[in-house]
Amino acid sequence: MAKNLVLRHRPIKPHPHSLFVIKKKKKKKKASIREVVVAIAISLSTRGGGGGGVREPLLRRRRTLNTTSQIAIVGANVCPIESLDYEIVENDLIKQDWRSRTKVQIYQYIVLKWTLALLIGIITGVVGFFNNLAVENIAGFKLVLTSDLMLKRRYFSAFLVYGGCNLILATAAAAICAYIAPAAAGSGIPEVKAYLNGVDSYSMLAPSTLFVKIFGSILGVSAGFVLGKEGPMVHTGACIANLFGQGGSRKYHLTWTWLKYFKNDRDRRDLITCGAAAGVAAAFRAPVGGVLFALEEAASWWRSALLWRTFFTTAIVAVVLRALIVFCRSGKCGLFGQGGLIMFDVSQTISTYSISDLIAILALGVIGGLFGGLFNFLMDRTLHAYSIINEKGAPFKILLTIAISLITSCCSYGLPWLARCTPCPAGIQEQCPTIGRSGNYKNFHCPPGHYNDLASLFLNTNDDAIRNLFSAGTENEFHISTLVIFFTGIYCLGFITYGIAVPAGLFIPVILAGASFGRIVGTLLGTIADLDPGLFALLGAASFLGGTMRMTVSICVIILELTNDLLMLPLVMLVILISKTVADSFNKGVYDQIVIMKGLPYMEAHAEPYMRHLVAGDVVSGPLFTFSGVEKVGTIVQTLRLTGHNGFPVIDEPPLSDAPELVGLVLRSHLLVLLKRKIFTKERVKAGVGEVLQRFGKFDFAKPGSGKGLKFEDLDITEEEMEMYVDLHPITNTSPYTVVETMSLAKAAMLFRELGLRHLCVVPKTPGRPPIVGILTRHDFMPEHILGLFPHLEPHK
Amino acid sequence: MAKNLVLRHRPIKPHPHSLFVIKKKKKKKKASIREVVVAIAISLSTRGGGGGGVREPLLRRRRTLNTTSQIAIVGANVCPIESLDYEIVENDLIKQDWRSRTKVQIYQYIVLKWTLALLIGIITGVVGFFNNLAVENIAGFKLVLTSDLMLKRRYFSAFLVYGGCNLILATAAAAICAYIAPAAAGSGIPEVKAYLNGVDSYSMLAPSTLFVKIFGSILGVSAGFVLGKEGPMVHTGACIANLFGQGGSRKYHLTWTWLKYFKNDRDRRDLITCGAAAGVAAAFRAPVGGVLFALEEAASWWRSALLWRTFFTTAIVAVVLRALIVFCRSGKCGLFGQGGLIMFDVSQTISTYSISDLIAILALGVIGGLFGGLFNFLMDRTLHAYSIINEKGAPFKILLTIAISLITSCCSYGLPWLARCTPCPAGIQEQCPTIGRSGNYKNFHCPPGHYNDLASLFLNTNDDAIRNLFSAGTENEFHISTLVIFFTGIYCLGFITYGIAVPAGLFIPVILAGASFGRIVGTLLGTIADLDPGLFALLGAASFLGGTMRMTVSICVIILELTNDLLMLPLVMLVILISKTVADSFNKGVYDQIVIMKGLPYMEAHAEPYMRHLVAGDVVSGPLFTFSGVEKVGTIVQTLRLTGHNGFPVIDEPPLSDAPELVGLVLRSHLLVLLKRKIFTKERVKAGVGEVLQRFGKFDFAKPGSGKGLKFEDLDITEEEMEMYVDLHPITNTSPYTVVETMSLAKAAMLFRELGLRHLCVVPKTPGRPPIVGILTRHDFMPEHILGLFPHLEPHK
Repeated sequence: MAKNLVLRHRPIKPHPHSLFVIKKKKKKKKASIREVVVAIAISLSTRGGGGGGVREPLLRRRRTLNTTSQIAIVGANVCPIESLDYEIVENDLIKQDWRSRTKVQIYQYIVLKWTLALLIGIITGVVGFFNNLAVENIAGFKLVLTSDLMLKRRYFSAFLVYGGCNLILATAAAAICAYIAPAAAGSGIPEVKAYLNGVDSYSMLAPSTLFVKIFGSILGVSAGFVLGKEGPMVHTGACIANLFGQGGSRKYHLTWTWLKYFKNDRDRRDLITCGAAAGVAAAFRAPVGGVLFALEEAASWWRSALLWRTFFTTAIVAVVLRALIVFCRSGKCGLFGQGGLIMFDVSQTISTYSISDLIAILALGVIGGLFGGLFNFLMDRTLHAYSIINEKGAPFKILLTIAISLITSCCSYGLPWLARCTPCPAGIQEQCPTIGRSGNYKNFHCPPGHYNDLASLFLNTNDDAIRNLFSAGTENEFHISTLVIFFTGIYCLGFITYGIAVPAGLFIPVILAGASFGRIVGTLLGTIADLDPGLFALLGAASFLGGTMRMTVSICVIILELTNDLLMLPLVMLVILISKTVADSFNKGVYDQIVIMKGLPYMEAHAEPYMRHLVAGDVVSGPLFTFSGVEKVGTIVQTLRLTGHNGFPVIDEPPLSDAPELVGLVLRSHLLVLLKRKIFTKERVKAGVGEVLQRFGKFDFAKPGSGKGLKFEDLDITEEEMEMYVDLHPITNTSPYTVVETMSLAKAAMLFRELGLRHLCVVPKTPGRPPIVGILTRHDFMPEHILGLFPHLEPHK
Repeated sequence: MAKNLVLRHRPIKPHPHSLFVIKKKKKKKKASIREVVVAIAISLSTRGGGGGGVREPLLRRRRTLNTTSQIAIVGANVCPIESLDYEIVENDLIKQDWRSRTKVQIYQYIVLKWTLALLIGIITGVVGFFNNLAVENIAGFKLVLTSDLMLKRRYFSAFLVYGGCNLILATAAAAICAYIAPAAAGSGIPEVKAYLNGVDSYSMLAPSTLFVKIFGSILGVSAGFVLGKEGPMVHTGACIANLFGQGGSRKYHLTWTWLKYFKNDRDRRDLITCGAAAGVAAAFRAPVGGVLFALEEAASWWRSALLWRTFFTTAIVAVVLRALIVFCRSGKCGLFGQGGLIMFDVSQTISTYSISDLIAILALGVIGGLFGGLFNFLMDRTLHAYSIINEKGAPFKILLTIAISLITSCCSYGLPWLARCTPCPAGIQEQCPTIGRSGNYKNFHCPPGHYNDLASLFLNTNDDAIRNLFSAGTENEFHISTLVIFFTGIYCLGFITYGIAVPAGLFIPVILAGASFGRIVGTLLGTIADLDPGLFALLGAASFLGGTMRMTVSICVIILELTNDLLMLPLVMLVILISKTVADSFNKGVYDQIVIMKGLPYMEAHAEPYMRHLVAGDVVSGPLFTFSGVEKVGTIVQTLRLTGHNGFPVIDEPPLSDAPELVGLVLRSHLLVLLKRKIFTKERVKAGVGEVLQRFGKFDFAKPGSGKGLKFEDLDITEEEMEMYVDLHPITNTSPYTVVETMSLAKAAMLFRELGLRHLCVVPKTPGRPPIVGILTRHDFMPEHILGLFPHLEPHK
């Protein structure tokens, strides 16, 4: 039995995805002692108190540094990660607050909560619309310019203009991303997902990230990359919510004092869940889909009350979008195209299907799963490769982006030359060839009355390309060869584009690839099939989404809301279920993959099987730093300086109690506030709770936004004060969750995960020992840590 | 501080909704000691070990009996309630099982899980369709008969036929319900909700309940009552799932040995969640709505994996329904009417709306909230009144049903005489007056070429009445007076019908009342409004649903799937949010209200504010029964006989250990199995784990279906064996969750709720005391219990 395994000081296997990452430039300098201490502090800041001591982390850190090149931090600097704490700190201060809370304050809080949900909805809706509008205008202008030159048969100038515009836009996007907010690169969904699981990566939700995410996304999408605005919109929504959650931005002089109620991780989590849902709702104009996305993919904790608030937010987004679209119908929005709340309306088609269709759809599901799994694999490899380039610094990031931009421009402009010119079909309502920027029938290099079907897909915005692929009643518009070329091009561009330093969503590339593949199937079946090729394209998109993202209900509802076709629902469900099942047998979903790659310590909802063979005491590692109920100031300062632990057990010893007993847990941040105020005594005596409470306001211990709290360096303690005592009882959380050391690790993990803890105290089973054995933190439950300690365990048993 | 309050032996305030309910007939007999013991055992079976001793429950029971008449058990006998246990019992046996589990078995389990989801989907789909088909045919036949007589101007015979049919159907429904399965009365949603929260009320999911639910619902709906088949379908789905979950039915000789894997509360919970979702999907033909309903209203615990499986089940339901409907289009299904997966298709209307519409909609939301709250209040009162009648026995239940049936028949047939005859509008596509059973224009007593608009609503199936109210382009069809009469009639019939002994859903009455109210508003606005009155009816239905059920997203999606109109979504959202907010300020949602009224100990997802002022030790009440690691058989038998506790702490004492220490928790059901096998020793020694394990098969300790486990009476221990010893270690759960006695009660409640526990061990804070203070069970967290112990606490602070 694992209970008997003793394993202190067992050498620890370094893991490429370890959490302990230090900024690379420090590597070369010979570190002074002070720097080493700070570095330990940083590296430990992910760990909380208890687990890990002084010597061990140093060991680990060195080993990890050797493998830094394996750590793929896509498009972002290596940055500290902080665990979030959803536990209610029940100390004397908060109890005092509860007692003094008036009815008015409670109502104030509720009204504020709903006001914030409203504001997040409005702002996200407006930002989402602005994003759309800007892209349509910038990309539209570029495309109109290009097609004008094409009409004049000045093909090379057209390419120069097209490629040049793309290059400028791409460089601008990469530059602001690389220099202002590297955290804004990529989709942002994995980070939001990790945040909602309890992992805060530094500056991921900062105002600068928000700025870059909005404008970088506009520039990136306009630059013709094969990427979408959907993922970035989720991140944008989360950033907007976080801005409220941390009480505004002190740096940009935008602070709201009435937001102080929300300065804790629990309320912030709720806000950011709303924000993420609002982002999806704004991106897809799908309010229900947004709620379900937040529920299925983003959030780790969920309550019925939150469902309602999230729903309210997305409803507001829908209303705002609708109002703005109605406003734009009057033609005041430049090149802003086909609006309406339904983006790809296919509902005019009647969907009846036969057995042969069903077989084709099953096949589509399987193939979607295979291609989805392959896409994830290829993207993983690409990201690992790119991380080497991206780590070299901002200029390299920009160069990489430029390279991808050139490749994309060449494909988009070059590949249509492979397609033949098709005469315009007779008797259609649409213009042929298309005049202006969007439309099904691009003229490209063809003679009048003809169109180039590949150009209709490539030389268009991604949204228009999807609309063309989904369009019904256009069975013969796209040649099979065109679709094959487009599918291959988009599929490859899809996975090479994501890793560049530009806000990039994955939905659009996957939908494009899936839709073209689905249309290939539909076209191949031809008259055998009852379903329209447009509907096959829809099913193909669903199948590819299921294969890469591995979401089910939310994709289904998003597609439903995108296309306004309820009768397709059973087919869409079927195809997603098949593709997800097939792809799940190969690898994880794309967002989970990125979370792992970024080394974010994500807690899964279920315990791993091998955890059943271990007990909580097995994974606790020493030494443990504890404080006495009334502790010497010097000891506290020394401990805070030496370790980066975020929680310390407080133990009362005689004469304060009859025998040593665990009072509770005190947080580093609270200790810093207490020390800063200097409520010290000369003797080791309990200070009156009332006295301490009087010295503090209600929100002095509230958690500020990331990176804004008191730091150890802010303390200013004299030599004399070091010899004095401070009473920790008023700030000690007297109700920490505890497990006995012989508790099965699997059950301890469930407790930790379900209650959203940051620290879990492990207490001894037998009497006569110190009242606490150690503290478990998020890190102690990570497979890397456990399998490093117990290499003989089989991960799946 | 509450910590210092000592409150053992404080007299306990009886509560009308107490859990301790005993079958009434026992009340009159003078109870023998044996009976009292059994009664205590039953009453305690809801409590688990620990809380409550011998004397206290007796006291409580007596007091509770005096207030039995206050307990409203609607349409069901008073029955024992059992807590469910979602904790994994980590004893030697299960660890052995984990070690020996092969890959094949794991795959077998996964395949089985999905097969069951498939089967639940198919069966629920077929049952749902069969239900629909039967209702359409029975009610259709009745209506055709009546209208034939009306055409011949034989009005009195028509009434006799109409009322007589209703009466026969209603009596049949009430009879099978009252005599075969009283638990099948009512909606069933509250019970399913409670089950998924961890409260199993006896025979709620039994096969007999399933039978009555299906046929009782068909008869009840056909009988023309103002009730729906939706709630019963949810219960039906849950019953079907439970049939699989408990391995079939031994009583009806339907058992499947390969279902043994699912014989535990966790897997059963998952299955029943799928079943509930499938029920909604089948009732409304709304697959996504079904998933969301299960998520928002039914389930208390939720995992992403379950989302997927539930979704699969509802997708299967949708496919099955679609196939059957296509089959019925060929006319092989008798009077089965307008099919299609969309039930009330309003999508041909273009929904544009102006500011004045928006104001009307806001008003509709507020009024819907007011009427919804009032409906819940009135229903609560009615149910309390009915419970007095229903408690008198089955014949009284049937009489009550007959009375309500007569009232309903009189209203349906009598009220249309108040309406004037209207000439058929010119230039409509539909037949006027309607020939056959459904349609917008019922002739009733009117001359040819005229129709009676109130008869179109009253003398129709509920589904057809809703379809008529939702119908678009029929602005002038219904007079305002007609709508007012219909609204008043339906609203009153709605709350007086629910409490009768017939399976009864609440969705349809609420939708009918809401739709007619919405149509009143739409008609009043007339030409001022841009929206069609049919869409106003839709919004009215949404607003009433929000006001009574208090669900948000699920209602929204169900309405979306019912009506196939995505563009109405923001309006529907808005109206639901307003009505829910308004109604929430008056009372709880209708299902929550019924849960409370039935005395089901439902654990809310959040801790009540007053719990913050108490600690876990405050609510633990003694005496506590513990066992030694190797215990005398006689002691165990005696304890099992004396108490009804379901969990007992096991404590090792010297010489088995150095000091007394808590080994873990042993369950009553496991003890019974162990005692039955008689693995006893003469001396107090530890038996080898291997030896014990050899004697038991893998599933000997699996939890059987409700009421099927070993009972105390099944034991057969000789006097000699009573003096022997039994080793409890192999069956002791060595990882019970524990809290320290000074842990805040609010946090203990969160632990209990989030992890789905049945027993929570409270351990002492200071050393030198026995290693366990008591056990907290579900009951100890109930407001009645806590506020009974601490009357000075303010419930909302």
